[in-house]
Amino acid sequence: MSMQLRSVVKDNGELELSLASVPVPVPADNEVLVRVEATPINPSDIGLLFGAADMSTATHADTPGGPVITARVPEKAMKGMMARVNMPMPVGNEGAGTVVGAGRSEAAQRLLGKTVAVLGGAMYAHYRCVPVEQCLELPAGASPAEGASSFVNPLTALGMVETMRREGHKALVHTAAASNLGQMLNRICLAEGIGLVNVVRSEEQVRLLKEIGATHVCNSASENFMQELTDAIAATGATIGFDAIGGGRLAGQILSAMEAAIGRSAKEYSRYGSTTLKQVYIYGGLDMRPTEIIRDFGMTWSMGGWLLFPFLQKVGPERVAQLKQRVANELKTTFASHYTNVISLQEALRPDVIAAYLKRSTGEKFLINPWKDAPPVN
Amino acid sequence: MSMQLRSVVKDNGELELSLASVPVPVPADNEVLVRVEATPINPSDIGLLFGAADMSTATHADTPGGPVITARVPEKAMKGMMARVNMPMPVGNEGAGTVVGAGRSEAAQRLLGKTVAVLGGAMYAHYRCVPVEQCLELPAGASPAEGASSFVNPLTALGMVETMRREGHKALVHTAAASNLGQMLNRICLAEGIGLVNVVRSEEQVRLLKEIGATHVCNSASENFMQELTDAIAATGATIGFDAIGGGRLAGQILSAMEAAIGRSAKEYSRYGSTTLKQVYIYGGLDMRPTEIIRDFGMTWSMGGWLLFPFLQKVGPERVAQLKQRVANELKTTFASHYTNVISLQEALRPDVIAAYLKRSTGEKFLINPWKDAPPVN
Repeated sequence: MSMQLRSVVKDNGELELSLASVPVPVPADNEVLVRVEATPINPSDIGLLFGAADMSTATHADTPGGPVITARVPEKAMKGMMARVNMPMPVGNEGAGTVVGAGRSEAAQRLLGKTVAVLGGAMYAHYRCVPVEQCLELPAGASPAEGASSFVNPLTALGMVETMRREGHKALVHTAAASNLGQMLNRICLAEGIGLVNVVRSEEQVRLLKEIGATHVCNSASENFMQELTDAIAATGATIGFDAIGGGRLAGQILSAMEAAIGRSAKEYSRYGSTTLKQVYIYGGLDMRPTEIIRDFGMTWSMGGWLLFPFLQKVGPERVAQLKQRVANELKTTFASHYTNVISLQEALRPDVIAAYLKRSTGEKFLINPWKDAPPVN
Repeated sequence: MSMQLRSVVKDNGELELSLASVPVPVPADNEVLVRVEATPINPSDIGLLFGAADMSTATHADTPGGPVITARVPEKAMKGMMARVNMPMPVGNEGAGTVVGAGRSEAAQRLLGKTVAVLGGAMYAHYRCVPVEQCLELPAGASPAEGASSFVNPLTALGMVETMRREGHKALVHTAAASNLGQMLNRICLAEGIGLVNVVRSEEQVRLLKEIGATHVCNSASENFMQELTDAIAATGATIGFDAIGGGRLAGQILSAMEAAIGRSAKEYSRYGSTTLKQVYIYGGLDMRPTEIIRDFGMTWSMGGWLLFPFLQKVGPERVAQLKQRVANELKTTFASHYTNVISLQEALRPDVIAAYLKRSTGEKFLINPWKDAPPVN
């Protein structure tokens, strides 16, 4: 037997997180069995884990089957949960581990014993069985921890640069820029000579990014933030931004600063503002408050959601394969990730640990090693 | 001599509106001289008229040259006015009148004596000289007042329907729907069998739209507004909206209602919401407060600015000519406008009248007849 972390929203308005005992899966012909040794807690996992539950109501119980977390889902939020009610859902977008079993196909057999990264969901578990195509073979010498975040952050960072180019912009703004993802984006932009305006929220984060070579870093906590942001945007010519925050004024401020930067070289008055399209994509929700937009940037603007998977679909499998290969090639450099905490599946369900990773502090990053505590007897 | 209304933002932070005495222009070969007899005050004129001035500080003086209005532009708003500082700007996007002079070209000569609508700016004047291409010959029997609003509202309404189709939507939502523009859009949608959700803000406006045959009318002042909006959106399948308000929560509420309507037929849970693109375009700013977006509609959404002129450029001159011809053909039916007040150029600069048209109440619509008061001696 092995364990798998599951999240269920019950029809009584309760969220329950637990570790289910499940048989070790058996790979089909073109599948491999991966012993999951490292799987990160990404912001994109948090939504599935906790749904709309109010985690301040969370209680913890130790049962014979392991820890169980229970929390209330506010009644008005249950409407949005309807499609997942009473369905225990496994969690964990990505991870890495060792191929310990393989189906009969040549491609599957070839991976036996290899360290692979997997994008497949349900990675918060001891084992995961996936088709060969969902694996990325890691370069020799790369550990599961080094490969655990091979997909979501690297492909998102590459996707931002590619979206920028495809939509006709030449430089970009990025918020929460001190994150693992932000550091990857900074390295990509430095390597390719792309103008990047990094927005962070503390002087410590400014230093961190400067240390890894960032050219433009603006601190949203600075008194002169708008001035500094406008200067950096004017210097780079950025007309597209990717915002991980979502709530509050920051997304709108980026549009305002873009318009002000464009206005510095405007030759004639237009009552509708500049005719340059200013685009901000919100790709995360670190701040769940409403987005507040002060519309002082004319009429040529757009704000919208951006997600990795529709982007991958749009560019097509051939391009995705190229991007993945680049990630593998540069895993220890451009796409290196850093973790501050390595926890077990059991620890992932401890209230104090949940509180810590729910804070989503930039610089704090949790990695689950399912084998850290009391591995099950096979 | 003749008069022309002008707006200037001075470098001392003062807005000044006045009537300038200008020579009657002389048409070039391919131009006509139009005696302007009717020109509407559109929301799109208000921005140029008053800039960022605080009209609560307005003062009025009677000078030998006519009335002069002066008001303060708040210091922080002057930044956005830089490109027009110290440049007296004529105002008035559109209007209609009689061709009283013509250049030597056949096309110009052919218009002599005809009633034409003109889209050309600077229409708040006794005379306007424009190239023949900027004129739309009105059908026999149409008065200047009937043709005064032949461009901005009709082409905007047609542009919304065309944008809906070009971007792959099948029904639309429109706010401030009891306006002249809203009534035109309602007539177009009824004629073409397009689903339209009209959003208004009073029961009186609900009645007005029901009387002209509207199928779906939602009152944003209703207690059950979100429920009613969602029902109407579900009934029509609307996934695009055009919002004249801009400020407050309405634009975001439309996205929320679209997502809720789509969710009613959702088959499986997606943590990122539906994959149907939900689009709201803000095309006006009746409410200048910040736009507040509660992001409870997943990640597949977009909000942005929409303007008539970029739309006309995008569809190209051939299509624009077709749209204009349709407006002329249906001027007294689909594209009929209603005015509650007809004022002179002098009255347009009276503080009590300014206060009235600045209120931008739906149903209140002002038309300027430059010849109403004391016509100048030629």
